[in-house]
Amino acid sequence: MERKTRIGILGYGNIGRGVELAVMQNPDMELTAIFTRRDPGSIKNMAEGVRIANVSEIAKYKDDIDVLILCGGSATDLPEQGPRYAGLFNCVDSFDTHAKIPEYFASVDKAAKDAGKTAAISIGWDPGLFSINRLLAEAVLPVGKNYTFWGKGVSQGHSDAIRRVNGVKNAIQYTIPIDDTVNRVRRGETPELSARDMHMRECFVVAREGADKAEIEEAIRTMPNYFADYNTIVHFVSEEELRRDHSRMPHGGFVIRSGKTGFDGNKHVMEFSLKLDSNPEFTGSVMVAYARAVARLNAEGRTGAVTVFDIPLGYLSPRSPEELRSKLL
Amino acid sequence: MERKTRIGILGYGNIGRGVELAVMQNPDMELTAIFTRRDPGSIKNMAEGVRIANVSEIAKYKDDIDVLILCGGSATDLPEQGPRYAGLFNCVDSFDTHAKIPEYFASVDKAAKDAGKTAAISIGWDPGLFSINRLLAEAVLPVGKNYTFWGKGVSQGHSDAIRRVNGVKNAIQYTIPIDDTVNRVRRGETPELSARDMHMRECFVVAREGADKAEIEEAIRTMPNYFADYNTIVHFVSEEELRRDHSRMPHGGFVIRSGKTGFDGNKHVMEFSLKLDSNPEFTGSVMVAYARAVARLNAEGRTGAVTVFDIPLGYLSPRSPEELRSKLL
Repeated sequence: MERKTRIGILGYGNIGRGVELAVMQNPDMELTAIFTRRDPGSIKNMAEGVRIANVSEIAKYKDDIDVLILCGGSATDLPEQGPRYAGLFNCVDSFDTHAKIPEYFASVDKAAKDAGKTAAISIGWDPGLFSINRLLAEAVLPVGKNYTFWGKGVSQGHSDAIRRVNGVKNAIQYTIPIDDTVNRVRRGETPELSARDMHMRECFVVAREGADKAEIEEAIRTMPNYFADYNTIVHFVSEEELRRDHSRMPHGGFVIRSGKTGFDGNKHVMEFSLKLDSNPEFTGSVMVAYARAVARLNAEGRTGAVTVFDIPLGYLSPRSPEELRSKLL
Repeated sequence: MERKTRIGILGYGNIGRGVELAVMQNPDMELTAIFTRRDPGSIKNMAEGVRIANVSEIAKYKDDIDVLILCGGSATDLPEQGPRYAGLFNCVDSFDTHAKIPEYFASVDKAAKDAGKTAAISIGWDPGLFSINRLLAEAVLPVGKNYTFWGKGVSQGHSDAIRRVNGVKNAIQYTIPIDDTVNRVRRGETPELSARDMHMRECFVVAREGADKAEIEEAIRTMPNYFADYNTIVHFVSEEELRRDHSRMPHGGFVIRSGKTGFDGNKHVMEFSLKLDSNPEFTGSVMVAYARAVARLNAEGRTGAVTVFDIPLGYLSPRSPEELRSKLL
């Protein structure tokens, strides 16, 4: 048997734990070390035989890790960590600030190439598996239209936006696709859709004592970018209810393309959908599959930054090309 | 603008016409020639400026065609045509005899490598897009189970099997996935399923005059491999009804993986589905997208046989890598 692929995790939050659980499900991989900004002694991890180290020690592990999985956030962690660690390790990250991907790609690409490393950026389900399906659908059905629906699931960005409203103590926001619209697209219609047509927003809000709930609701519903363009429902709940009923992290969504071929206008609908009990555990699972691909690409001398568009899918699987052709093709 | 990719079609049946229609939807491609075993004068094609030639002339077109799309059948045409034409052209085919893929791959691979050509085999939706989703789902969720459902759609093999029954003049067979089973899998269950649990078979049969319909029905329903393991419904119809109601070629299906992560057994369901008005037009569209990839792979010096598992998805799209990252990632 080949040597196992040795994984490092940087950042031990929800995604970091999801990655750890995923490594434990893949017998060709092992988790070597977890790096944290916190006191390593405070980390209670799950897999056995894993070294826990402060991130300041990370360079010492250069030869002990095949792929470092960056589990930080896109807002502040990754723009700095991505290029820095691609200069030391093969990396996988889940950078998801769509507008900044070109710039992020360029900075990671340069660092990785200079160091002879390979870094897969923007890996997860969106960007990631959904991007794959948007590309496939458009390439196969050039005359048509792509639709991406998210949810039902928690949007961290929208939850944070509510928490910044005056008088709000805590909040969770669910993005919910509008069934009637999803079904129209599934039937092969290609409507022009506004934000409001596609998703609604449901908010569970804990108000501070004495706060004016009507004012809070108004502030949320009229908030530009986040809520003003959507139908938004606001529920006020107790802190206890919020913890009890809204601390799980389900998510999911759909990529649907409706296209036409031929002179008769034959309709074709391609759909990819996810229903996830745990968004971070699923995201971690995708990142681990791409870590396998990154180790292989690097072994073949393919260096620099790559995305889901650049990696042959066979590289994601522990099976050999022969086995893939005979079992899965 | 770059030069257009010049396509040749070998075999002008339903798939060949589907390929022609797909080329017409892709502005970066042009159809150069159609090759047929019939009298070229008898072919009425759709695109303008296309040369129609007998297949015996095909070698003369060696320098005029970038990718030849083989539109013959898997039973007798492709085993001979695949290796032969991979020695002359870059090729795409839809070889779909699952059990013989390893052997077919080897013969095409050798011919293509010897000639410095690139050949994508088994391209379409199954094998093809469904294979991609089986691989992705298994790589991302190693603990889980894949299910492939086909239909509702016409199975040519099963229709042919009915036509061989004594007293049958003509027939069409629909493969139909069983809704209750599909819904169980969609809910995240991972049942062990028999053939009968997954699909049923509905047959529309034209009997010869004086034939014993009860005998025909019995012969169909008990036919080993094809029908004995399924619930099968047999309808007798007139030749006219068959032509009027059953000559369209819709198809589709689902690849569903239900998997678990973590200690809490969080469930995740990944689903890819197709609803196709025209099976051959959609298959032709997939083959044309892969023809684009084959031309690029060959230009980069990657020769031999390849499958959907070997080709980076970005190669399927007319968009540049930069554009893909900024628009679709």
